[in-house]
Amino acid sequence: MRIPFDQLEKEFLRVLEGLGFSRSKAAHCARIFAQNSLDGVYSHGLNRFPAFVRSVEEGLVRIDSEPGAVRRMGNLECWDGNLAPGMYTASQAMARAIELAVAEGIGGVAVRNTNHWMRGGTYGWQAADSGCIAICSSNTIANMPPWGSADPRLGNNPLVVAIPREKGAIVLDMAMSQFSYGKLQEYEMEGRALPVPGGYDSSGALSTDPSAIRASRRTLPIGYWKGSGLSLVLDVLVSVLSDGRSVGAITATGKESGLSQIFLCLDASRADQGLIENIITFTKSGENVMYPGEKTLATRQRNEREGIPVNENAWKALLAM
Amino acid sequence: MRIPFDQLEKEFLRVLEGLGFSRSKAAHCARIFAQNSLDGVYSHGLNRFPAFVRSVEEGLVRIDSEPGAVRRMGNLECWDGNLAPGMYTASQAMARAIELAVAEGIGGVAVRNTNHWMRGGTYGWQAADSGCIAICSSNTIANMPPWGSADPRLGNNPLVVAIPREKGAIVLDMAMSQFSYGKLQEYEMEGRALPVPGGYDSSGALSTDPSAIRASRRTLPIGYWKGSGLSLVLDVLVSVLSDGRSVGAITATGKESGLSQIFLCLDASRADQGLIENIITFTKSGENVMYPGEKTLATRQRNEREGIPVNENAWKALLAM
Repeated sequence: MRIPFDQLEKEFLRVLEGLGFSRSKAAHCARIFAQNSLDGVYSHGLNRFPAFVRSVEEGLVRIDSEPGAVRRMGNLECWDGNLAPGMYTASQAMARAIELAVAEGIGGVAVRNTNHWMRGGTYGWQAADSGCIAICSSNTIANMPPWGSADPRLGNNPLVVAIPREKGAIVLDMAMSQFSYGKLQEYEMEGRALPVPGGYDSSGALSTDPSAIRASRRTLPIGYWKGSGLSLVLDVLVSVLSDGRSVGAITATGKESGLSQIFLCLDASRADQGLIENIITFTKSGENVMYPGEKTLATRQRNEREGIPVNENAWKALLAM
Repeated sequence: MRIPFDQLEKEFLRVLEGLGFSRSKAAHCARIFAQNSLDGVYSHGLNRFPAFVRSVEEGLVRIDSEPGAVRRMGNLECWDGNLAPGMYTASQAMARAIELAVAEGIGGVAVRNTNHWMRGGTYGWQAADSGCIAICSSNTIANMPPWGSADPRLGNNPLVVAIPREKGAIVLDMAMSQFSYGKLQEYEMEGRALPVPGGYDSSGALSTDPSAIRASRRTLPIGYWKGSGLSLVLDVLVSVLSDGRSVGAITATGKESGLSQIFLCLDASRADQGLIENIITFTKSGENVMYPGEKTLATRQRNEREGIPVNENAWKALLAM
């Protein structure tokens, strides 16, 4: 079934206000959850909402907290998220990074003690809509073994790179694991093999079997040793610049909360749009080649016209909350 | 055979001065080539030197040119490399990015019309040695098909992330292809299969056969669709911020020259070294787990003690130049 955006957003708003969120904070978070579903990222929209509500009820997300600047080093600000809702803090940090970039060419905000930002692409689109290039990352709880080990010691730390474009922004939003656990579960439920190896089975062989990988918990970093290294440096970047928790420190608490994130922005108001079009045209040598963000925009436009596809049980559960 | 660093550097210097390089520019370039071999990156040290000399003789690299700033947008400068030697310009651009970061927290230099920087890690180590975090990238001639196509339309655009560390910097230096053509050739010459799939054979199947991949020219981006997207956004970043040539525009010239690069720096003088150590200790859960830069440092120290291993023919060819 499909639900109009406004209706989905209204239900999120109702539940969040019921939890005690202020009107404006509830509106902000409800909008982001609804937009994530609108853009086709259902895993971080409707389907994630119950887990977010639980994290509020458990006190991991503090609805009365506000993020605040701790110190400033030139155009790089360091904030404490004070465990406020992650989407709320991330939007504010990105808004500040945009201000700094517009004023000074480059600017950034590093945030510690924050919570899951849901879809990293949200903040990439935010920057691109303001005419800025963005580079963002977050760490996570350990969920992926480094190259050379079977023990999960790295996060799948997402990396977001966004570039403003008149015909629709370029927004890359990628985790460091080849497949998320959510994606493995989808393939498993559909009884399908992964299109490319996604991890190891229990005997240590590369595998396309989602069940075998979920059992071994040995998911694969993108590019094997390369994604393993990139995940590590992203963890160092976000935690060192924010003086925040690393993947290891988050993992030691047993809960994915108190994360570290970074939001870098570069002013792109002078960007040559013709050059960007040339790159996209040159790269799209076949009809199956997509630029990052292309599918998101197409899904958004379709869901705006036809409503957002929802899992019927998830929708009923939301109505009953 | 092994050659002391000073001897290797002296031979590079002699050849470059013979080509007409000024003393100081020759010294700078000779040092970088020697350091690349010292650090174990032989493919961009001694083994690359003859190709660099040819690019000077062909006029692709202009030895009398100097790079220069074209405009400034706050803390982001845009330079024209004027086709000067790529290593020379990259070192200067990074030095300027470091200055900007130390003064203002974050700074950057985007360079157009530059040449191959040889080993990107060189500039990462430079930043880390100055107490700065660095993020750098370069585009290249098209050498890798985007996800969804068999036609090479992307560069393997290297990404460098460096973080200062008292016990030895963390320096990630990775191309967007799983294996370079140089690496494929090494495996082929040794008659070995790749440890993981590195591209497609001519029938379109994923392959670990280096000969089959070199024949099809269908190398694989790291993480399949993910590295394909990251390569594209890096090309947009470097060419848009420098108003320079994209991968497509470079490819249209038929020669890998006139590249676009970016050098971003963040001041890390306040970085908590204990936090960095904790991340490395947590991640290295087994003896086979390495952090990015660990192997480079070990190789450098060994080659400082024992001399730099050189291919005998390459060494004789250098002496005869």
